Amino acid sequence: MNLRIPGPIPVPDDILGAMATPMMNHRGPEFQELLHRLTDRLKTVFDTSGDVFILTSSGTGAMEAAVVNTLSPGDKVICATIGSFGDRFGQIADIFGADVTTLRFPAGEAVDVDALRAALSGAPDVKAVLVTHNETNTGVTNDLESIASVVKGEFDKLLLVDGISSVCSLPLRTDAWGCDVVTSASQKGWMLPPGLAFISFSERAWQAHAEAAMPRFYFDAAQYKKYLEMGQPPYTPALSAMFALDLALQQITDEGMENVFRRHAEIGRMTREGIKALGLSIFPDERIASNTVTAVRVPDGMDADELRAAVRKDYDVVLAGAYGELTGKMFRIGHLGMVDPRQITEMLEAISGSLAKVGFAPAGAAVG
Amino acid sequence: MNLRIPGPIPVPDDILGAMATPMMNHRGPEFQELLHRLTDRLKTVFDTSGDVFILTSSGTGAMEAAVVNTLSPGDKVICATIGSFGDRFGQIADIFGADVTTLRFPAGEAVDVDALRAALSGAPDVKAVLVTHNETNTGVTNDLESIASVVKGEFDKLLLVDGISSVCSLPLRTDAWGCDVVTSASQKGWMLPPGLAFISFSERAWQAHAEAAMPRFYFDAAQYKKYLEMGQPPYTPALSAMFALDLALQQITDEGMENVFRRHAEIGRMTREGIKALGLSIFPDERIASNTVTAVRVPDGMDADELRAAVRKDYDVVLAGAYGELTGKMFRIGHLGMVDPRQITEMLEAISGSLAKVGFAPAGAAVG
Repeated sequence: MNLRIPGPIPVPDDILGAMATPMMNHRGPEFQELLHRLTDRLKTVFDTSGDVFILTSSGTGAMEAAVVNTLSPGDKVICATIGSFGDRFGQIADIFGADVTTLRFPAGEAVDVDALRAALSGAPDVKAVLVTHNETNTGVTNDLESIASVVKGEFDKLLLVDGISSVCSLPLRTDAWGCDVVTSASQKGWMLPPGLAFISFSERAWQAHAEAAMPRFYFDAAQYKKYLEMGQPPYTPALSAMFALDLALQQITDEGMENVFRRHAEIGRMTREGIKALGLSIFPDERIASNTVTAVRVPDGMDADELRAAVRKDYDVVLAGAYGELTGKMFRIGHLGMVDPRQITEMLEAISGSLAKVGFAPAGAAVG
Repeated sequence: MNLRIPGPIPVPDDILGAMATPMMNHRGPEFQELLHRLTDRLKTVFDTSGDVFILTSSGTGAMEAAVVNTLSPGDKVICATIGSFGDRFGQIADIFGADVTTLRFPAGEAVDVDALRAALSGAPDVKAVLVTHNETNTGVTNDLESIASVVKGEFDKLLLVDGISSVCSLPLRTDAWGCDVVTSASQKGWMLPPGLAFISFSERAWQAHAEAAMPRFYFDAAQYKKYLEMGQPPYTPALSAMFALDLALQQITDEGMENVFRRHAEIGRMTREGIKALGLSIFPDERIASNTVTAVRVPDGMDADELRAAVRKDYDVVLAGAYGELTGKMFRIGHLGMVDPRQITEMLEAISGSLAKVGFAPAGAAVG
């Protein structure tokens, strides 16, 4: 199976193999060594000298952790959203009692930094801005550096970032840009199965934590920090995924972060060029198109889900669908983690071969 | 390594192997089939016709889920605790705003049902009782059937049960006893690595959910129920552990729950007899001693942690320590999941061989 969804990603064989490592005592000396090694390398990937913790949860759990560790009920926050994962971030803050102003941009667009600046200008009592770096549901990467320069540089607000599908794939300079909390999850660029989430905290985030009154127990970062000093997790961790993370981080740091980013950029470009060559179009403007997930608009009259079904049935290539009003009009291709260019070629051939089935003569074939 | 701590447990090779299964689309048809199969078998293990959900978290996450899905800030609850995991249950309820009355019993004792009855008689406005079935930190199993008959039968209160180290090892009749919410975690009797938690909800628990005002997002059971009807998880799940769970549940249901319980009872008895034969004593009264974890009291003047270190160094057998005021006075032996009696014999020999090292002539050796 050529699994081309934006997570879970196909996990390299050696990393899958590490998932089968026998158990150890998570309160013993070997684990202590493992935890410190993982934490050091996570800081390299997050590009931070702040704290990074490993949670046993999906990325959504880390989003909840970002909110409940830094905010109090009644705190005014701006949620700048460009899709359903951005909406989710605001929804979590709302449920835990924050006073959320939603700054929503149309599907396929990125956050307009001027609109964000205007919103912040008009709301001096805002405490934090919540934003998604890479919106998996529309295939758009926000210009987080510019967003951060407004949120931090111009207004000095707390910046909470959903980096779930960007950290370890796209450049995200946590400290240099001033991101206070950044989240990620293992089934993305990390080359791992799902099951772990990661979260970073800046000094400023800890100051917010000291005042933050939202209730929290399982996701309380203070417990993770306290136990990390003893080389332990507060609660029994997902050991198997941590053994696999150990191998993945070794490979990632050996490769070097800039090379990891370059690799993702090249695969992203290759995917977009291939899709256009088939006569299909990239959903967002290419200048904001993500290098981890490509959203593809199908021509009017074509059912994207029918195309996906044909690709699956005839070629065993699995693509992701779209949600809400875009259902059937769009499909999505995941290309995070270790992607062999041949997997992209194979996928493009599968789409090409299936287009006729759904009544569309591919451009490539026409040219041929 | 003979890992004899009360979780993580040594995972059988075939189940470890299943952890290395390649990824699939968690929103696709194969996963749907897997999720329904897992859910059906989980209901068999939980002995319930109610709902059972799989969470990506440690057991503590499931304890938080039990609280936030059924209670509102200000709700009066009784936390009947016999150790640190019981204390944690009450602490979670307190942090999320419940009005918690703690009914604490001394370490090594079980919940006194008469004391619980008296507490409930004196507090008619109590909404729920929180209790640990099997207290891992003291090696005591509560008489949950009697507790439930008081809480449900006599007072008709909501009953939230931490069954983390009992479900799938010790008899826990969720429906027959009237347990409204029961939690467990994969690294216990389930024969799995840590990373998954399980939680059941009765009809009554859902009624409580409808009124419960504590904030919840990641652990909101309503989302798990809604998505389960579509054959999906609300958030990307820990697939690897679910593949392993599939194999483990196949083996467990093939063996039959009563045989699983009998196996744990036999290993528990064998462990206690062996420990006594070495001249050491079981910490709790044997009538309430757990069949999943044995707490061993060492003679006055002996340092239990020194003994553990010797056992580890010379025999590669890993025992668990004790916490708080029992540190150094006690150690704990885990025997949940698939335990080969030879592993127990090996461990007893290791302890026997190490006792002299810490200045104690074992009874067995003296007799010999």
